[in-house]
Amino acid sequence: MTLTLHNYFRSSTSTRLRAALNLKGMEYGYVAYALREGEHRAPGFLARNPQGLVPALELGDGTTLTQSLAIIEWLEETQPEPALLPADPLGRARVRGLAYMISCEIHPLNNLRVLRRLSDQFGADDAAQVAWFTHWVEATFDPFEQALQSPDTGVYCHGNAPGLADICLYAQVWNNKRFGIALDRWSTVARIFEALDALPAFADAAPPRQPDAS
Amino acid sequence: MTLTLHNYFRSSTSTRLRAALNLKGMEYGYVAYALREGEHRAPGFLARNPQGLVPALELGDGTTLTQSLAIIEWLEETQPEPALLPADPLGRARVRGLAYMISCEIHPLNNLRVLRRLSDQFGADDAAQVAWFTHWVEATFDPFEQALQSPDTGVYCHGNAPGLADICLYAQVWNNKRFGIALDRWSTVARIFEALDALPAFADAAPPRQPDAS
Repeated sequence: MTLTLHNYFRSSTSTRLRAALNLKGMEYGYVAYALREGEHRAPGFLARNPQGLVPALELGDGTTLTQSLAIIEWLEETQPEPALLPADPLGRARVRGLAYMISCEIHPLNNLRVLRRLSDQFGADDAAQVAWFTHWVEATFDPFEQALQSPDTGVYCHGNAPGLADICLYAQVWNNKRFGIALDRWSTVARIFEALDALPAFADAAPPRQPDAS
Repeated sequence: MTLTLHNYFRSSTSTRLRAALNLKGMEYGYVAYALREGEHRAPGFLARNPQGLVPALELGDGTTLTQSLAIIEWLEETQPEPALLPADPLGRARVRGLAYMISCEIHPLNNLRVLRRLSDQFGADDAAQVAWFTHWVEATFDPFEQALQSPDTGVYCHGNAPGLADICLYAQVWNNKRFGIALDRWSTVARIFEALDALPAFADAAPPRQPDAS
């Protein structure tokens, strides 16, 4: 099946999907949308995805899937190996819970359109935006680090194979870098990030490696 | 299995989980945390859930699951009937995509701790908080309504059985009510909300019906 990824190098949710596709060994075409220039709000893309958000994954028949985590669950169901979720329901709940800590408690608060809204509605300058971004990272990375103090944690967030929680974590840490947030206070997070960054599936998904990187 | 739901009547993510448990016909004990009084930050609850967020679902052996959507996926895997997701992967991707539009694009921006942060960091008064809340609802309900203009939509968001997207939608509409947001401009959303509200599994999960409602 031909897959086309509509995305942006710096988008954290795009990084997630690139890592998932790489882990599954699935090839895809790459179409970039410069978010700062509003290319994702152009009529052509809105016709494909009325949300006007990247990433979106276009299948060979033109069907377009949206929302990074919904797409990754679809990948998992249609191409089960290698698995991004463990086999047991409690393990799956743990991995999804870790993934959603990042995808529901950090990323939604810190993406470009939210920072722009803070600027538009409250006059938030760069320093105020960094303070906002940092606040939400710390509010969740602290309990995330604590949740990793578990016998279920291995080389990666859950055991010794990378999965959905790692995908979300890896993408978030790249986002953090842009705002100057070091990992010093979260030693397990730091260790796992380094382990992930040593895997080509992850490193090749990182923002600086993309064709539209600037 | 004995299930204990740690939650709060007005919490939208708690409403989701109550509706899911009701749909599955699973009984649960109800423990309330008054968020405005900070009861979810008390040491006893933090020991159970370091995130200090409701809802959390405690199993009979003391295991505590967190993050509403991770818990609902666990319910779906351990008690498959009635199904909250369709059987086909593309249908599942559509339903999860709709659910995540609400759970990743609206709710994280509009919950109590975010509104408090807007007040603390930017001095946002009640009117500014309502404007912020309304902005994010409209930014996603507009494309959500558009996504419902599909032959896949039936009595509910996907076909004629209620599922995960309906659960997220129902809880969000209850949240909207508190901020005075009417459904007039989203006619399909309004129709589906009425259909859901006629089902006891949903109506019994609504905030005003809970023992801690005030």
